[in-house]
Amino acid sequence: MTGKSSNKMWGGRFASGPDAIMEEINASIDFDRKLYAQDIAGSLAHADMLADTGIISADDRDKIVDGLNTILSEIEAGTFEFSRRLEDIHMNIEARLAELIGAAAGRLHTARSRNDQVALDFRLWVSAQLENTETALTRLIGVLLERAEEHADTVMPGFTHLQTAQPVTFGHHCMAYVEMFGRDRSRVRDALTRLDECPLGAAALAGTGFAINRQQTAEALGFSAPTRNSIDTVSDRDFALEFLGLAAICGTHLSRLAEEIVIWSTPQFGFVRLSDAFSTGSSIMPQKKNPDAAELVRAKTGRINGALIALLTVMKGLPLAYSKDMQEDKEQVFDAAETLELALAAMTGMVGDMQISAQAMKAAAGAGYSTATDLADWLVREAGLPFRDAHHVTGKAVALAEEKGCGLADLPLEDIQKINGAITESVFDVLSVDASVASRTSFGGTAPANVREQINWWRGRL
Amino acid sequence: MTGKSSNKMWGGRFASGPDAIMEEINASIDFDRKLYAQDIAGSLAHADMLADTGIISADDRDKIVDGLNTILSEIEAGTFEFSRRLEDIHMNIEARLAELIGAAAGRLHTARSRNDQVALDFRLWVSAQLENTETALTRLIGVLLERAEEHADTVMPGFTHLQTAQPVTFGHHCMAYVEMFGRDRSRVRDALTRLDECPLGAAALAGTGFAINRQQTAEALGFSAPTRNSIDTVSDRDFALEFLGLAAICGTHLSRLAEEIVIWSTPQFGFVRLSDAFSTGSSIMPQKKNPDAAELVRAKTGRINGALIALLTVMKGLPLAYSKDMQEDKEQVFDAAETLELALAAMTGMVGDMQISAQAMKAAAGAGYSTATDLADWLVREAGLPFRDAHHVTGKAVALAEEKGCGLADLPLEDIQKINGAITESVFDVLSVDASVASRTSFGGTAPANVREQINWWRGRL
Amino acid sequence: MTGKSSNKMWGGRFASGPDAIMEEINASIDFDRKLYAQDIAGSLAHADMLADTGIISADDRDKIVDGLNTILSEIEAGTFEFSRRLEDIHMNIEARLAELIGAAAGRLHTARSRNDQVALDFRLWVSAQLENTETALTRLIGVLLERAEEHADTVMPGFTHLQTAQPVTFGHHCMAYVEMFGRDRSRVRDALTRLDECPLGAAALAGTGFAINRQQTAEALGFSAPTRNSIDTVSDRDFALEFLGLAAICGTHLSRLAEEIVIWSTPQFGFVRLSDAFSTGSSIMPQKKNPDAAELVRAKTGRINGALIALLTVMKGLPLAYSKDMQEDKEQVFDAAETLELALAAMTGMVGDMQISAQAMKAAAGAGYSTATDLADWLVREAGLPFRDAHHVTGKAVALAEEKGCGLADLPLEDIQKINGAITESVFDVLSVDASVASRTSFGGTAPANVREQINWWRGRL
Amino acid sequence: MTGKSSNKMWGGRFASGPDAIMEEINASIDFDRKLYAQDIAGSLAHADMLADTGIISADDRDKIVDGLNTILSEIEAGTFEFSRRLEDIHMNIEARLAELIGAAAGRLHTARSRNDQVALDFRLWVSAQLENTETALTRLIGVLLERAEEHADTVMPGFTHLQTAQPVTFGHHCMAYVEMFGRDRSRVRDALTRLDECPLGAAALAGTGFAINRQQTAEALGFSAPTRNSIDTVSDRDFALEFLGLAAICGTHLSRLAEEIVIWSTPQFGFVRLSDAFSTGSSIMPQKKNPDAAELVRAKTGRINGALIALLTVMKGLPLAYSKDMQEDKEQVFDAAETLELALAAMTGMVGDMQISAQAMKAAAGAGYSTATDLADWLVREAGLPFRDAHHVTGKAVALAEEKGCGLADLPLEDIQKINGAITESVFDVLSVDASVASRTSFGGTAPANVREQINWWRGRL
Repeated sequence: MTGKSSNKMWGGRFASGPDAIMEEINASIDFDRKLYAQDIAGSLAHADMLADTGIISADDRDKIVDGLNTILSEIEAGTFEFSRRLEDIHMNIEARLAELIGAAAGRLHTARSRNDQVALDFRLWVSAQLENTETALTRLIGVLLERAEEHADTVMPGFTHLQTAQPVTFGHHCMAYVEMFGRDRSRVRDALTRLDECPLGAAALAGTGFAINRQQTAEALGFSAPTRNSIDTVSDRDFALEFLGLAAICGTHLSRLAEEIVIWSTPQFGFVRLSDAFSTGSSIMPQKKNPDAAELVRAKTGRINGALIALLTVMKGLPLAYSKDMQEDKEQVFDAAETLELALAAMTGMVGDMQISAQAMKAAAGAGYSTATDLADWLVREAGLPFRDAHHVTGKAVALAEEKGCGLADLPLEDIQKINGAITESVFDVLSVDASVASRTSFGGTAPANVREQINWWRGRL
Repeated sequence: MTGKSSNKMWGGRFASGPDAIMEEINASIDFDRKLYAQDIAGSLAHADMLADTGIISADDRDKIVDGLNTILSEIEAGTFEFSRRLEDIHMNIEARLAELIGAAAGRLHTARSRNDQVALDFRLWVSAQLENTETALTRLIGVLLERAEEHADTVMPGFTHLQTAQPVTFGHHCMAYVEMFGRDRSRVRDALTRLDECPLGAAALAGTGFAINRQQTAEALGFSAPTRNSIDTVSDRDFALEFLGLAAICGTHLSRLAEEIVIWSTPQFGFVRLSDAFSTGSSIMPQKKNPDAAELVRAKTGRINGALIALLTVMKGLPLAYSKDMQEDKEQVFDAAETLELALAAMTGMVGDMQISAQAMKAAAGAGYSTATDLADWLVREAGLPFRDAHHVTGKAVALAEEKGCGLADLPLEDIQKINGAITESVFDVLSVDASVASRTSFGGTAPANVREQINWWRGRL
Repeated sequence: MTGKSSNKMWGGRFASGPDAIMEEINASIDFDRKLYAQDIAGSLAHADMLADTGIISADDRDKIVDGLNTILSEIEAGTFEFSRRLEDIHMNIEARLAELIGAAAGRLHTARSRNDQVALDFRLWVSAQLENTETALTRLIGVLLERAEEHADTVMPGFTHLQTAQPVTFGHHCMAYVEMFGRDRSRVRDALTRLDECPLGAAALAGTGFAINRQQTAEALGFSAPTRNSIDTVSDRDFALEFLGLAAICGTHLSRLAEEIVIWSTPQFGFVRLSDAFSTGSSIMPQKKNPDAAELVRAKTGRINGALIALLTVMKGLPLAYSKDMQEDKEQVFDAAETLELALAAMTGMVGDMQISAQAMKAAAGAGYSTATDLADWLVREAGLPFRDAHHVTGKAVALAEEKGCGLADLPLEDIQKINGAITESVFDVLSVDASVASRTSFGGTAPANVREQINWWRGRL
Repeated sequence: MTGKSSNKMWGGRFASGPDAIMEEINASIDFDRKLYAQDIAGSLAHADMLADTGIISADDRDKIVDGLNTILSEIEAGTFEFSRRLEDIHMNIEARLAELIGAAAGRLHTARSRNDQVALDFRLWVSAQLENTETALTRLIGVLLERAEEHADTVMPGFTHLQTAQPVTFGHHCMAYVEMFGRDRSRVRDALTRLDECPLGAAALAGTGFAINRQQTAEALGFSAPTRNSIDTVSDRDFALEFLGLAAICGTHLSRLAEEIVIWSTPQFGFVRLSDAFSTGSSIMPQKKNPDAAELVRAKTGRINGALIALLTVMKGLPLAYSKDMQEDKEQVFDAAETLELALAAMTGMVGDMQISAQAMKAAAGAGYSTATDLADWLVREAGLPFRDAHHVTGKAVALAEEKGCGLADLPLEDIQKINGAITESVFDVLSVDASVASRTSFGGTAPANVREQINWWRGRL
């Protein structure tokens, strides 16, 4: 608090003048306190290394370790008093350590700076979150595999342009999402591999003249190696950008499935019915079920895309090495990470719990002459017609069925033969939706046996 | 809490199963409680109108008013207990009202729904925030005018490509930002005019059969008129998007000034020195001053751009009328609004407090033959040379000065005359930076008298 | 072409070395040639002013005017040879002018620079495009009004969460979009007002010492006034950002209507049928109609959002005055403008041509007990029940109807009365979808008379 | 052209009515013609496989192969006539093939659809572009390694907050960018691995009943395997999103180096001087050099970020399988890919050609008591002071030097000893910028020997 509160240029939220504004814009403790465990883990590893290399005494190390463990307990017990005046998590812990152990606290900061410290803390956090994401994706893939297996034979319309195109199975449709979330998981793994280098020891930006052992701290903190360039180490937020990038793609996948659930839940489609847990109702329209969770998952894409653009914009054109702009990295990543975790959990829950109406799906799959392609393919395959001629014949058959108000499979053989004499009884083997689906046995096709094969392939990769 | 915690699909943050996930993704009370004052104001206006039109009794109205005022006091005193189970601010207040006044509470919701209620609350909040933004912009413009006046004669380099191009005054440079923030303010005013329609009475989406008086509630809440289409009313978040759009442009302006402050604060430029309040130092390098506040303001652009993209993405492709996706609107706008307010306050503080080094500016303005254009213009104007020839002569003069290691104004007249015989003594009137600046008297030009004229013009618009 | 092609660092597209790369990244003539008419108009106005103020002779002015008109003819006839070596439209025209009229060409550039010239050209282009957008919006609003009038009585389901909530009319739904596009149009008009200042005369960045008349050129080019600050004038791209911002909001509106058309065109909904002109079919499934145009309009939102983010990112943190980064402004705006124009035209065409299935809409509107709210409102209004009790009674009635497999309006009076004795015959006046819709007469409500009133209000504003 | 041109709703660009609009919004041939080589390669592989599996005759295959090769020649010779009426590259080639070889052309489309065809073509294009990007990154890394080696001993200021913090070497600074572009390259490689699955054979969306051999076509086209799920195959654009994501991060790195070049090129810094090839000058200020190429590279970040957001927005919420929205994928990726390629080439050129002023860098490195940290570290290391006390002593020494107007290394020993008696002659070993830099030998530190070690490490990975 300052005496500037009477300054006419301040008002409203900033009545108390420059110092209050600066504290508000500058202090990060309100959000970076989330990094307390990473910060303490880094300090413990650093203290051990400093003692092992003889830079500090074993006695100082022991005091530091005790003090940090006390602070960890205090924070987890909720008794630690965070102070905005001390700006960030590093200074909050450092100040408390000095209170607890006195002068030895000052030795912890030998050969270290806040620049490599925050790079470490944040990288550890993102790393752990990538592992959570991997687990959450595996869980969602698992649920999709269960539903796919259950519905390997359930016929539904395959859509293009949201119009019925060809019959597929619901199991096959679920497996399309398994592929998407599988790619997401592989992006997560690549990101984990790429960030597997320890920033500690880069110091402010130039490295240090102390004879530190960066391999030791890297190993102690679970990294494969230390980073190779001290300037890059404190300037780099690629690991955060890469996380946001993969989260945005994963969020996009979630939005597609969410959109389908919203559409499938309409009375017009009636393909699925969400459990009560993931929908809300109306006190006066008991049959009404709003797919709230699906809508929210769909919307969360926007939030993640926003975080990605926010950090890309922040990092644009920043000279090396550390600039204060980079403090804006954490809230975006924290929010996107929590958003993705929540969206994945909600989707896993919805998919696991939702009721499938195989009857409605099958009815829709059969409408609209969805097996017309099968007829055309039969004509090419069995009657030797060129593709374009086969299309022509099929068009006539569909027109006839439309005229008669029946399905293709319901046309009398003689009527079809009038259109093309080469057609035989065996054509009916492909005109039902079940037959159509069963026939698509090319690798990756929708035939139930293929779908089961893919399910098994994926089960070996859970 | 549910008994589902043993379900193998849940884990980590969502150990307690679907209900916990749904509460987490669905409940908005953690952020929409910020709308409590707007929600209560809307309910008070609605209750009055219901009583005035005879839809509820005066007695019920009085109970409702008393109850709402009690709730307002409770919230402001911090004694109100918000419940996530009650999802949002509307239900939290409604439930408490029922506790306080019983059956009459139920009558408040006649001819209203949460859909028009949240549209009202949020619009009122955005409207108030636009007014805050207008005030903050006016304050920043005011400070810029002060600095501009103080430095109407202070010469600095005018840059293109961050290279010295021509001398200008620092006052003129400040006034460029006045123009930018002035346009921002006019966008704010347009947005205020456009959102000046009251959503209340659109009900769920179709309007209502009760004989309500929408003009009355609109007027009571400070709107010029009610909205014209009930479906649009509950589907529309244009006012939020427009706010984010103008905030992004304003944030971009702030980032440009912030970038300049960062560059000007380097020892290499040395044009400005931030006050201690808006910079941080180093315990061992007392001369070092990090322009933290400027860097953070520059970074905040990213945050606002992110919020804009987030909401645009959320709204993309949403069928009418209300979809739950729209619940994602508030956090983005709240965050962007607070960010903009903070960034404007910090910039106002920095600009107001920073020290200007007129000496460093002038020295830089004179370097690099920045008045070469003035020489060329003199040749055109006074000696009648075509522009291209004048350029040629000027190039030779600059080359000569470079050879002699002096400025253009330091060249002996006879030497210049050897390049072109038409040059006279009066050329020196334009070769100093002060003369150059003074000569740019075209409307909008950098001559001190012009700058002062513009300052006066703007003072009349504060 | 240079001799550097043997340099080992170049390859592929850039085989010919630095000069080729620089030409490729630096030259803007491939896209800024689109500004030729604006560039020539600006030069004509400038030449006139220079002559009127005596800065150039009338004779030179006449030569310049003739030369420029010749160039205009050449460009429009396609005989003008654009050269990448001359970088941009300004230099291409200037070089040709020198060829045509000799030394006088050089005098045109007195008191002007490429910085104010490009600011002018681009502003004129954006201004014209804003006017096109206004016209296109008015046209779309006109078509929506026609369809709204035609279907003021056509009942359809009003959706929330894409679930049937209450009956509305298709006319009312159309009018929701009229409101949206009406707001878009008002944003266009505000933007036009804001950019109504002429950049010409700001010169490189500092104004000029020539006694030019900026009011004259401003007026000649259709602006209300010259800009007020020369530095801002050449640094400012707000008019482009504002255009992109309003285009993004308009694109979002278009994407919502497009999404509805896609969903409504499914066989499951069957509400609308696009004309052949705006859909594509299948050679073998003649009944299939893919809503390609609607899908493309929906997708175009992404393109516009991308352009907005692109320019916001470009402008972030740019020091004043002109930086070459700003050359990236034009392609984004050109592309977004053409995209918006095309999307508006396609939507206007689709809406104007599409067939409405009033029957399918009405059937869907009546399903799902969509008038349950009307029953509850009747109980409040006519039987004096508190809202919550009315909901309870309604829930029971819906449950009974569900049990009987009939609609609310089909329940025998005595059965309803068993639920609540206060119910009378008149309740049936509100239980049909037509009655429900007719009852919603609150201002902005869906009652056909209201809709017609709104149509008339808007007709007065076309 | 239609007879609808008189329809009052059409005007301007769309005077000819719905068909013209539809052609304009629907046809992709103007941009997807870029895929001609991929399209033909895919068809050749498909024809071979169809013949090998006996689905078509060897004779038909030979005709198809001849026809396609003819078309390839025609396109490359510029004699092929592309038609917008035929919509896209697939139909343009198909139609020409039918002209050339008649009925056999129709057989090529057996067991294939445009959906898997475009997925293949685009994936092949992105794959080739990723390989180009990898090469371009390797080239840029190579140039940075050269400059780093040349300047492994060149001292410059290491900046934080754009304020001098500690001396580093320019070689070390270059190597920071090597790390960044090295990570970019590893992201490219991961993306290449992930997209290494062949879409051909997914057909419209369900696979096919023809006994095709997807392994064969995959192998023929250079893929490791066919894709595993036919629905996903035609719905997936992850490979495009992942490319845009990594391009955005790479563009961000480029923007940082570009910003540094702009700042370093100012007369105030004077660290580098761009070659004439990558800068532009002024005809009258011969000493002026505008860093145009650096500014344009900086700006290109915005363009790539825009493309990323555009495609993320397009894909948001799209139901499976193919929707026409996805046609918007190509222009964004084409533009971003060309932008990235150009920006990498320009940066490679600039870095390779720019002159480094070692003198200006060293002078700046020594200003501002940049070795104060070294003094503090010496006090900790040699005199056993706790870190905080060492800071205190250092602060006093800096204050003294400031008072005397000299550098730290210029202070007389006795004066320093008055501040702290433990200081000895050997302190001067760390107070010069060269000594400071040489002392930072921790792994990843800025000591020249370390930098050379890193250069060698990277040379082994070119």
